[in-house]
Amino acid sequence: MWVKPNPDFSPEKPLFLCILANTETAKIPNISAAGKSPELTDFTPAADAELVETGNAISINEPAMTPSGAPSPAVLTRASMLLTGIPCIFINSGLRVRPMIPTIDLNTRPGGDIRKGHAVVDALDIFNKSKALGEKLGQLSDFVIIGESVPGGTTTAMGVLRALGYDGKVSSSFPKNPLQIKNKVIEEAMKNSGISFGSLRNSPLNAVESLGDPMMAAAAGLVDGLNKKTVLAGGTQMVSVLGVIKHLGLVRDVSIATTRYVADDKSANFREMTEILGYEAFAADPGFGKSRRKGLRMYEDGDVKEGVGAGGAMLAAAMMGFSRKEFREKTEEVCDSIFGI
Amino acid sequence: MWVKPNPDFSPEKPLFLCILANTETAKIPNISAAGKSPELTDFTPAADAELVETGNAISINEPAMTPSGAPSPAVLTRASMLLTGIPCIFINSGLRVRPMIPTIDLNTRPGGDIRKGHAVVDALDIFNKSKALGEKLGQLSDFVIIGESVPGGTTTAMGVLRALGYDGKVSSSFPKNPLQIKNKVIEEAMKNSGISFGSLRNSPLNAVESLGDPMMAAAAGLVDGLNKKTVLAGGTQMVSVLGVIKHLGLVRDVSIATTRYVADDKSANFREMTEILGYEAFAADPGFGKSRRKGLRMYEDGDVKEGVGAGGAMLAAAMMGFSRKEFREKTEEVCDSIFGI
Repeated sequence: MWVKPNPDFSPEKPLFLCILANTETAKIPNISAAGKSPELTDFTPAADAELVETGNAISINEPAMTPSGAPSPAVLTRASMLLTGIPCIFINSGLRVRPMIPTIDLNTRPGGDIRKGHAVVDALDIFNKSKALGEKLGQLSDFVIIGESVPGGTTTAMGVLRALGYDGKVSSSFPKNPLQIKNKVIEEAMKNSGISFGSLRNSPLNAVESLGDPMMAAAAGLVDGLNKKTVLAGGTQMVSVLGVIKHLGLVRDVSIATTRYVADDKSANFREMTEILGYEAFAADPGFGKSRRKGLRMYEDGDVKEGVGAGGAMLAAAMMGFSRKEFREKTEEVCDSIFGI
Repeated sequence: MWVKPNPDFSPEKPLFLCILANTETAKIPNISAAGKSPELTDFTPAADAELVETGNAISINEPAMTPSGAPSPAVLTRASMLLTGIPCIFINSGLRVRPMIPTIDLNTRPGGDIRKGHAVVDALDIFNKSKALGEKLGQLSDFVIIGESVPGGTTTAMGVLRALGYDGKVSSSFPKNPLQIKNKVIEEAMKNSGISFGSLRNSPLNAVESLGDPMMAAAAGLVDGLNKKTVLAGGTQMVSVLGVIKHLGLVRDVSIATTRYVADDKSANFREMTEILGYEAFAADPGFGKSRRKGLRMYEDGDVKEGVGAGGAMLAAAMMGFSRKEFREKTEEVCDSIFGI
């Protein structure tokens, strides 16, 4: 089986949410492959949302792919939404570019550059607004998957995990993880903020403010407010959110789902971190090695790996009985319609 | 009974939505009482949303009341939401001021001044985005009430109804309806747009573009996409939306709910118009004549009358078994906490 969902749970009103944010951290050269150039990462979350919703990235002219030519993980998420019919709603948690589709707007600011010592303006405010939103959506849905699209987000994730006292090795949208750059950025950020390893283990929202991004506060608030079965759909970025949730002392029915590409990434430690933190983890393998599309085969070599909740979207497809082959073929169809055959 | 809901319908997952928009039409002097001055109407929808959600109009320093001292109808809506616990989500369909709470953002522009011949930039685009949103929310909810907060909205309503071929007499947030000013504005607008009475009966979205406001396209699109039992919560503004829906040829389970203050307003023709259009109408009487608060008693003399979906919110409270007295007392409590005892 490509991903093994819990057999004893069948949601009645599933909902897929995806939190979008921009940060200045993403513009540090060679940090993120989620955009053709560092400056263009401002457009990536909006384009991802548009692509999932309409099959067309309205806000950019560039093809929705990494510089090396692997398609945005939004194509995986779109494939799953088309298969499952689960309603999918995007949340603006600090965007420079608003998508041309309806989104939930938390009315918050984009993240800064963590090296400058203040990455998120008011994490508690974001948390509380998102919690209020979660309380409402939790009245309508019994199972919520929460994805993210935050370029540069593995660097902020690594920073927050360190501040909480974890040696979280994070993954990357590049095949070759630029860990040296990330380490240097985080060391500079911690120095400038006066934070040492584990020094914010008791103030996770302060860790988000100094070293994180606005998505993290929004995701944690949503999980708290929803108070339903939730799955954080993402790789090491969502591991950092689990860290925030745990260190806030929140007790919620939350697990994490990612792709095999992140779970098996030897430069990162996804499985180890989820075990240490104590949350159930799912890893979905779309089997793209067999794909007729070169761009999807590139995922097998470590390009992209995850994003826009792709892993959780695959979990949802598996829960609703779709096979790995059906998912792969639907993803290929989505690619055909976007990039041509 | 203060409002008589259909006894044979009991929703499982009710949802209250409220569409917010600003227009330049609202800034024509003496058109709207929804703000202390014409320029301040830009803040009214945001403040209404904040007041319903948090009990506090964050974005304005002025008390949330008409110049004469009657409280915003947002206090009625808040009272109903507190009683019923129905989740309430606001929709930004063209705001100059974004509320400091989570809202759904249609990413559309505020409305213009109808006298200038182009009031709404792309009504079909708004309709389609809102329809897509409705399709998602319709998977989560089986009963949706749709309110609005659009200062100056009775003037745009009257314009659209005329373009569709109806002598819609609209109500007002003033005790003395400034119909002469509205007529003059609409005559000028129709002249400048080359529209005559009924000339757009076959192109209702064009009527919205020339003489309406962005809320109308959003409300019609939502009703279409939701495809569930829906109630338009508003007075003559929502009558214009019924007109748009009817003239688009949409067949949906939609009715309208307002307050007695609009339904009995002799300067308007709410009951007549809903009969002509052929939709079921509800009128809720909160019995504010008995209120211990002067501001609420002013509603009995024609101040405010309706807004922020107050009539529909009362219908929801009645559906869930709350009495007129319980509603009035909860509204008084809300006023106490906002304006002091």
